[in-house]
Amino acid sequence: MDTFDAIRSRRNVRSYAPDGLEAVDLEVILEAGRRSPSSMNQQAWDFVVVTEPDRLRDLAEVWRYAAHVATSAATIALVAPASTDPDERETCQFDLGQVAMSMMLAAADRGIGSCHAAIGEQALARELLGVPADRECMWLLAFGRPADRPLAPIAAPSRRPFGDVVHRERW
Amino acid sequence: MDTFDAIRSRRNVRSYAPDGLEAVDLEVILEAGRRSPSSMNQQAWDFVVVTEPDRLRDLAEVWRYAAHVATSAATIALVAPASTDPDERETCQFDLGQVAMSMMLAAADRGIGSCHAAIGEQALARELLGVPADRECMWLLAFGRPADRPLAPIAAPSRRPFGDVVHRERW
Repeated sequence: MDTFDAIRSRRNVRSYAPDGLEAVDLEVILEAGRRSPSSMNQQAWDFVVVTEPDRLRDLAEVWRYAAHVATSAATIALVAPASTDPDERETCQFDLGQVAMSMMLAAADRGIGSCHAAIGEQALARELLGVPADRECMWLLAFGRPADRPLAPIAAPSRRPFGDVVHRERW
Repeated sequence: MDTFDAIRSRRNVRSYAPDGLEAVDLEVILEAGRRSPSSMNQQAWDFVVVTEPDRLRDLAEVWRYAAHVATSAATIALVAPASTDPDERETCQFDLGQVAMSMMLAAADRGIGSCHAAIGEQALARELLGVPADRECMWLLAFGRPADRPLAPIAAPSRRPFGDVVHRERW
């Protein structure tokens, strides 16, 4: 798919078709994340990819809005150092945002929907995924083919108007 | 360009060809950013796009590693609410990371290089861009056609090995 079509087609998908993803789909999504830029090229991230139905169901319990994880074809946990330094945490979150977007666009390109979930129960996420004590599970990204309709460019997304967001030369 | 090719072609470009960008290039890059997902669809961002050479030169002074901004064809400042709440700031940074990646991939798709810069001198950035006191200039993204060689998929990027980053089912 053309890149701008993928950008315009990506939407939050929380209901997934029952068929799983092909191995190559997951490899491309993970590779897109691995290639993301990061501050000082630190790549302070690890990805735990979960596809086993039982584990996905358990993982859906880490946040009250993570129910869609249970029925996803795959969910990728974005894991980062468990820092207490505010600057480090902010930089890490920016970098993870870049990872997430790379993964979601690589998925959209292949017709695969995605949806984030935050982590409410950190201890549970860590236990389920075997994440070391010096790391923190920051986000989940659920993936799967949409149950409703295929991804296609969205003409009028629910976003602030262009002219409201964009300032020319000066605010 | 195919999405995965754009993902594999994006690289930090700090030296730009002297020709500017076409208006449509900038519109597509800004539109990609505007469409990004955000926590609760808050879209807590504004984009200030700078193309005037004098202003770009001034803007390059906001950080010691922002020299490339001076010769970029356009630089987009990502502006967000000036929050002191750590959770709000982290969420905002994650969302801005998604914006940045969307913009950079839309650019790469059109053969346009990009490079981030952080903001060291917040007061100077605010003054140059006319950013209100309740907002903060979080990042600059510089864009331009590469001076060295066209963007093309990178076979072996400088990244941690796939098998080191990716964990299957459990860490």
